Amino acid sequence: MHRTKVRIVEDALDANNTIARANRADFDRHGVTVVNLMSAPGAGKTTLLERVLGPGIDGVRVGVLEGDVQGSLDADRLADLHVPVTQINTDSGFGGECHLDANMVRSALDAVPLADIDLLIIENVGNLVCPAEFRVGEDARIMVSSVAEGADKPLKYPLMFRTCELVIVNKLDLLDHVDFDLDLYLHHLDAVHPGVARMLVSARTGEGVDELREWLRRLPDRAAVPA
Amino acid sequence: MHRTKVRIVEDALDANNTIARANRADFDRHGVTVVNLMSAPGAGKTTLLERVLGPGIDGVRVGVLEGDVQGSLDADRLADLHVPVTQINTDSGFGGECHLDANMVRSALDAVPLADIDLLIIENVGNLVCPAEFRVGEDARIMVSSVAEGADKPLKYPLMFRTCELVIVNKLDLLDHVDFDLDLYLHHLDAVHPGVARMLVSARTGEGVDELREWLRRLPDRAAVPA
Repeated sequence: MHRTKVRIVEDALDANNTIARANRADFDRHGVTVVNLMSAPGAGKTTLLERVLGPGIDGVRVGVLEGDVQGSLDADRLADLHVPVTQINTDSGFGGECHLDANMVRSALDAVPLADIDLLIIENVGNLVCPAEFRVGEDARIMVSSVAEGADKPLKYPLMFRTCELVIVNKLDLLDHVDFDLDLYLHHLDAVHPGVARMLVSARTGEGVDELREWLRRLPDRAAVPA
Repeated sequence: MHRTKVRIVEDALDANNTIARANRADFDRHGVTVVNLMSAPGAGKTTLLERVLGPGIDGVRVGVLEGDVQGSLDADRLADLHVPVTQINTDSGFGGECHLDANMVRSALDAVPLADIDLLIIENVGNLVCPAEFRVGEDARIMVSSVAEGADKPLKYPLMFRTCELVIVNKLDLLDHVDFDLDLYLHHLDAVHPGVARMLVSARTGEGVDELREWLRRLPDRAAVPA
């Protein structure tokens, strides 16, 4: 009986996971590694992508899938860098969906040039809750935090911090101007996700961005484990 | 036929609105004015409340209802100010709800000392999408933005900015240290919500907080319109 109950709970997420696996099969067939990039609104995902994609990643052809409630502001910024960008808007619901799910990503795949890229970066809707609940077929999840948001965030949004492979602490250039205790933040981070990879960067100054570029370049080697 | 279809669409939100009206009736019966305080994670809602409630609001007894996915970090901070604080945790779902709805607020009302307060401030879950979609019985909505989040936010999360009575631009002390074009932000704000009341504050330095305190003190006079 116990086992049956557990299975029913798992079934509630199965529709999304089934589609996520279908996405993943398509990505694998084309040899495309996929990153799900998540953060709170305004943590600096797009600015960070501009920094990474401006000079490019050595030997890696990158495409971007942009998730936003409305508009194409971020997609327009990235298209200026001459990378293929596909926009998903989630506002068909009454106030807009607060996250991407596997089906939304699937509905956009026809417009993504999978044959021409090696790495697809999916920039999720800015939100620290629901994006963590929906796998979309990614190989890795990167979560961007900003020092302006406060050191308590890992404790307040634990699922997000627990389900990612890399945590980026951004806006390091603001460290002298905000009440942010970096040691306390890292202590909280290790409490919810012990030993998770982390990087300290400033998308504004470029500090630490090379390390992220290298992490992305080497991701296909590490991402050999199936979903 | 057309009319029937419209009614069905409206019905989808009616369960929440019905409960919101019941909440509102309870608030009215006790003469309690209610604010729904919303923002992205880390925009500074709690620090702002500490600034406002530390000295208190002249002649106004304040209570707080804290919405968080998990934990009671914010509630603990505010309880130190000797205001009655009630905590709602939304993590009973698989990854936690990303917003408060009218039923969650209703489920907490027994624990809120409505007879002993004049103003109830409901601090919503940090999120710029879904909280805007759910009325909880409030008289007014306040939305806190931070200059660290960037000037594009009104265009990216229009429903949130459109459905509030007051927009607070917080972290003004960071203005010299971030690439934030205040005029552009206000231009975007007026594009999605023409003429909405706005205040420039720094919860860190206290700049502008008196104006917010006065706005809250006078809210019952303005909030005479039923939900």
